[in-house]
Amino acid sequence: MTQYTEINLTKRPDGNPIGPHMFEVVKKDIPTAGPGQILIKQTHMSLDPAMLGWMSPDTESYIPPVELGTVMRSSGLGEVVESNHPDFNVGDKVMGMTGWTEYILSSGQGFNKVQAGVDAETALSVFALPGLTATQGMKLLEPKAGETLIVTGAAGSVGSIVGQMAKADGLRVIGVVGDDEKADWIVNELGFDGAINYKTDDLAEKLAELTPNGIDVFFENTGGPIQQHIFNRMNTHGRIVVCGMIADYTAANPAPGPNWIPLIKKRIRIQGFAMPDHFGEVPALLGKLAPYVMQGKIKYRTHILDGLESAMTGLNLFFTGGNKGKLIVKL
Amino acid sequence: MTQYTEINLTKRPDGNPIGPHMFEVVKKDIPTAGPGQILIKQTHMSLDPAMLGWMSPDTESYIPPVELGTVMRSSGLGEVVESNHPDFNVGDKVMGMTGWTEYILSSGQGFNKVQAGVDAETALSVFALPGLTATQGMKLLEPKAGETLIVTGAAGSVGSIVGQMAKADGLRVIGVVGDDEKADWIVNELGFDGAINYKTDDLAEKLAELTPNGIDVFFENTGGPIQQHIFNRMNTHGRIVVCGMIADYTAANPAPGPNWIPLIKKRIRIQGFAMPDHFGEVPALLGKLAPYVMQGKIKYRTHILDGLESAMTGLNLFFTGGNKGKLIVKL
Repeated sequence: MTQYTEINLTKRPDGNPIGPHMFEVVKKDIPTAGPGQILIKQTHMSLDPAMLGWMSPDTESYIPPVELGTVMRSSGLGEVVESNHPDFNVGDKVMGMTGWTEYILSSGQGFNKVQAGVDAETALSVFALPGLTATQGMKLLEPKAGETLIVTGAAGSVGSIVGQMAKADGLRVIGVVGDDEKADWIVNELGFDGAINYKTDDLAEKLAELTPNGIDVFFENTGGPIQQHIFNRMNTHGRIVVCGMIADYTAANPAPGPNWIPLIKKRIRIQGFAMPDHFGEVPALLGKLAPYVMQGKIKYRTHILDGLESAMTGLNLFFTGGNKGKLIVKL
Repeated sequence: MTQYTEINLTKRPDGNPIGPHMFEVVKKDIPTAGPGQILIKQTHMSLDPAMLGWMSPDTESYIPPVELGTVMRSSGLGEVVESNHPDFNVGDKVMGMTGWTEYILSSGQGFNKVQAGVDAETALSVFALPGLTATQGMKLLEPKAGETLIVTGAAGSVGSIVGQMAKADGLRVIGVVGDDEKADWIVNELGFDGAINYKTDDLAEKLAELTPNGIDVFFENTGGPIQQHIFNRMNTHGRIVVCGMIADYTAANPAPGPNWIPLIKKRIRIQGFAMPDHFGEVPALLGKLAPYVMQGKIKYRTHILDGLESAMTGLNLFFTGGNKGKLIVKL
C-alpha cells in the first residue's frame, strides 16, 4: 500500500445531519519522514462533540474553525512508523491532534507518548479530552461532600467521568440522559444516585423527586429545555460550569437562557470553559485524575466505529444520543 | 411632640406602581431607652432598589421578605437622643438598618457611628450600601487597566461609583442610562468615556460605536433588553457581575436571558452577588473604597425627598428612572 486516505471538510453544518456531502475523501501518497520528522500511522481517532463547533463558521470560538478544503480536525492515537526525531522511536504509541487521516507527518510537536500499560481505548476515553475536561470542570465547580451535583450528557464521555468523580468525592449525583438503557448504566454500573430521561420523564417532577435538597453544582454538557428546570432548582451559592450545548449548536436561533434574577437572589456563579485554555495545566489535571482511575473509580465504555470514512456520519450520534460510550473510530 | 410615625408594609407589589395603598402609616408614642438601649431619631433614610426585592413574597432571596404588617425595612442615619449604652453618647450620628420610622429603640447592635467629618449625605451615598456594593462587585470583576467596562444604571448610586472607580483604574468606561441629562452627567461630570440612552439610542449600533474593542467587564444593575446586546459584545474571558435586575423585579414573567453558547465559546464568567454575603468584609471593602474618595475620584449627587411618607411613592423613581442621584428621604 503506497496510498492513504484523508478527509477534508468542504461544507459547513446547515442544521441537517452531518454526512458525506460535507466532506471530500482524498487519496494521497504516503509520505516519508524528513529530517527531524516522524511519520505516524493513526490507529484510533477520537470523535468529540467539540468537532461540531470546529466545523462551524463562527469566528468567535476559542479555536479557529477548520478551513474548508483542509483536513478535518480531531485528536487521535497512532503508532510511529518512521522516525528521524531523537525523542521518538518506531513503535512508540503517541496521542495528539491527528486529524481525519490515516497518516500524519509531524515534527513531533503536540504529540505525547502514551504511558506504558495504558491501552488505546483508555488513553482516548479517560486520559485525553474527556478526562481532562471533567477534571477541569470539577475544579471550577468546587464540589463539596454532601452537596448535590447534576450533570447533563451523563452517559457521555465527559459526563460519565464527572459523575463518577463526584460520587467518589461524596456528593449526591444525578445524571440526565436520553434513553433508559443509559439511565440504567449510570445508576447500576456507575453508581449514580439517580437518572432522568429528558425525552420521556416529566422534568420538573422528576428533578424535584431526585433532588429533594435542591442542586448545588451543575455540569452542563448539553443545553436543551432541561437547563431551565435545573436552573430553577439551584441552591444559594450554587455553581454552574458550561462545557457543552450540543442541543443548540446547529440551531439557527438558539433558545434563550434563564433570566438572571436568580443569579442575584441565590448568588450563583456560571462559568463557561473550554480545554484549550487549560492545556498548560494538563500535567496538574492528570495528577488529579489519575488517582480516581488507579483506585478503580472510573469506568467507561466505548462505541467503536470502523474505518476513517465512518466518522462522516458518526458525528450525528452526538445529536441523536445514539452513541453508547466514548466514540472512537478504529482505523 | 410625644408621638412619632412609622410605616408598615401591608401589601406586596403586584406590578402596579408602589404607593400608599400598600402601606399603613401608624402613630406611636415615642419610647424611652431601657437598660443598655439607645433611642435613635432618624434624620436621613436611604431608598435603595433592593427594597423592591425585600417587599416581594419570594422566599428564596438572600434576605427574608418584610413581613406584612411590620415596619418596612431600610437603612438610614440618625442621631442618638437617649443612651443607656456605654458605647453610645447622646448626639452620636449612627448608621444601620433603621426602617421606615422616625424613632428606633435599639440595643446598638448593627449600628455603627458615622466617621467624624463625613456628612450624612456622603455617608449614605458612598460609605454605605452603594459604595460597598460597587467595591465588592469590582472585586469580583477583576478589571484591568486598558479593558472596557460597561455598567447599566450608570447614573445610579452604585453604577456611578462603579464607573468612577473603573476610570480611576484606567479602564474605558461606558454607562447605560435612561435619559440624556444623566448621559450628560456621567460623561461631562464623572468622566465616563461614553453613555448610551437605552430608551432612545439604537442599542446595537451605539454599543458597537462606543466599544470598538468589545466589552471585557459588565456590571449589571438593571436587566432589560440591553442585556442581550451587551452580552453579544462580550470578549473572550469576559466577566459579568449581576447586582440588580430592576427591569424585571415586578414582571410576572421575567424575560428570558441570553443563550449560554457564548459562555463556552468565550469562556465567560457570570457571578450574581448581594451585599449581605459580604458584611463580614465591610472593613476590607471600606479600605479599598476610601482611597478613591480621599483622592477626590468619587463624585455623587443626591435626590432628596422630604418626610417619611414620601418614601411610599418615592420608590417608583427606580422604575421610571426619575431619580437624579442617590435617593435619600430627609426626616
